[in-house]
Amino acid sequence: MKFARFIANGERYTGIVTDGRIREIQGDMFGKWEYTEKTFSGHEVKLLAPLEPNQIIGIGANYVSQKQEIPDVLPEIPVFFFKPASSVIGPEEEIIIPKGIDHVKFESELAVVIGKEAKHIPESDVLNYVFGYTVGNDVTAPQFFHQDGHWTLGKAFDTFTPLGPVIETELNPFKVSVKARLNGVEKQNSPTELMVISICKMISYLSNIMTLKPGDVILTGSPVGAEFVKPGDLIECEIAEIGTLRNPFVAAQESVQAGQ
Amino acid sequence: MKFARFIANGERYTGIVTDGRIREIQGDMFGKWEYTEKTFSGHEVKLLAPLEPNQIIGIGANYVSQKQEIPDVLPEIPVFFFKPASSVIGPEEEIIIPKGIDHVKFESELAVVIGKEAKHIPESDVLNYVFGYTVGNDVTAPQFFHQDGHWTLGKAFDTFTPLGPVIETELNPFKVSVKARLNGVEKQNSPTELMVISICKMISYLSNIMTLKPGDVILTGSPVGAEFVKPGDLIECEIAEIGTLRNPFVAAQESVQAGQ
Repeated sequence: MKFARFIANGERYTGIVTDGRIREIQGDMFGKWEYTEKTFSGHEVKLLAPLEPNQIIGIGANYVSQKQEIPDVLPEIPVFFFKPASSVIGPEEEIIIPKGIDHVKFESELAVVIGKEAKHIPESDVLNYVFGYTVGNDVTAPQFFHQDGHWTLGKAFDTFTPLGPVIETELNPFKVSVKARLNGVEKQNSPTELMVISICKMISYLSNIMTLKPGDVILTGSPVGAEFVKPGDLIECEIAEIGTLRNPFVAAQESVQAGQ
Repeated sequence: MKFARFIANGERYTGIVTDGRIREIQGDMFGKWEYTEKTFSGHEVKLLAPLEPNQIIGIGANYVSQKQEIPDVLPEIPVFFFKPASSVIGPEEEIIIPKGIDHVKFESELAVVIGKEAKHIPESDVLNYVFGYTVGNDVTAPQFFHQDGHWTLGKAFDTFTPLGPVIETELNPFKVSVKARLNGVEKQNSPTELMVISICKMISYLSNIMTLKPGDVILTGSPVGAEFVKPGDLIECEIAEIGTLRNPFVAAQESVQAGQ
């Protein structure tokens, strides 16, 4: 099932996408919901990010370029980072490059949406806690990485986490490819089997640290090939079984001062 | 005014503390609210964390031991980090040291609660966006810091962000001291004027990166003197004008595996 959030006739809705139409639902996406009488055709709606995440957790440097490069011994402590919910935008919305920032990267990713509270779950049980999957773009300004390694600010800017177009609940996450096209030219295209730390390992590990909650989004890392962009560029992040998340980059009017 | 959240007779309430009693309020703490008819005496209630934060943002290494050590040139990019809302507990609740973690530190801090959406605000305007102040304990397990500098995991464990006892809205944040006592012995005691990056600079800076929202909590850094603790220790974080945030450290039953 493909869950979407959207605007139609100036109102916000949640619905299920079926055969090019969207049927409205009411209730809790992660719990009890039911169809209403309303349906919409695709051209009537403007899609939003398919959820308002509770927390967004990313993992760094998680793809190799070919399978034999996956290390036998995995890192003792993976690189995890948080992104603020305030950075989320939906499909077609503008990614704003703040003034004073010269280098911004796209990073196309498979985003896992947690559906049930999860603490200390074994790897074998992880998929039972997953609600579904969407496409994420972990937009990054390395210029705002702290010299001592902290990535927080460089990933925290408003508009730096496009999500969408839908949450697909029936995906086999081990059998999909994560792609990105910049201005129509393919830059990323890797199957998820090229992840260094697999989805199940990553989520089991995280659940040993913190209680994961419905609406938490885990960005599972970006394939090799991410590049810097400039205002006017158009990025399309795609997982064929979910859809295409397309966003233009634009220059901001307001400046960011790195120094004080 | 001192805002508190609490449990009485098995129910959750929000209220205002006055002369040792708590008067219940209904509505939005950050917007419109009104008193109900209910009041409670202090011994009837169990305080909770005074809010469920929207986001928690911390700043690293932000105190010097004396004023002349504050550098003339401030860091170009401060060390900011996020903590998950799942790590929050209230006064008197147990801070759980996971199995397999040998070293856990307390860090007593002034916590700023944002009351209004804030983007691109100048330093001179910051206090207009502050709802109030509480005491925070930024509990930290440096063993889970990544060798490349990422602090995320070491600060993300459940129970690692005690907040409370109340949100004081009438504080002058520049005229208070941040203290901690471990098992009754004072370990931290610094006026907030020993911050390297002041509250107004820090929040103005953050607002240039991300839209701050009502319920965001900013942990403004911990004075020199934080120490490692062990199960059985009792930590009291105190800002006299707000109150004392007291929590015992206990050992967990479940283990955390750093490796895969």
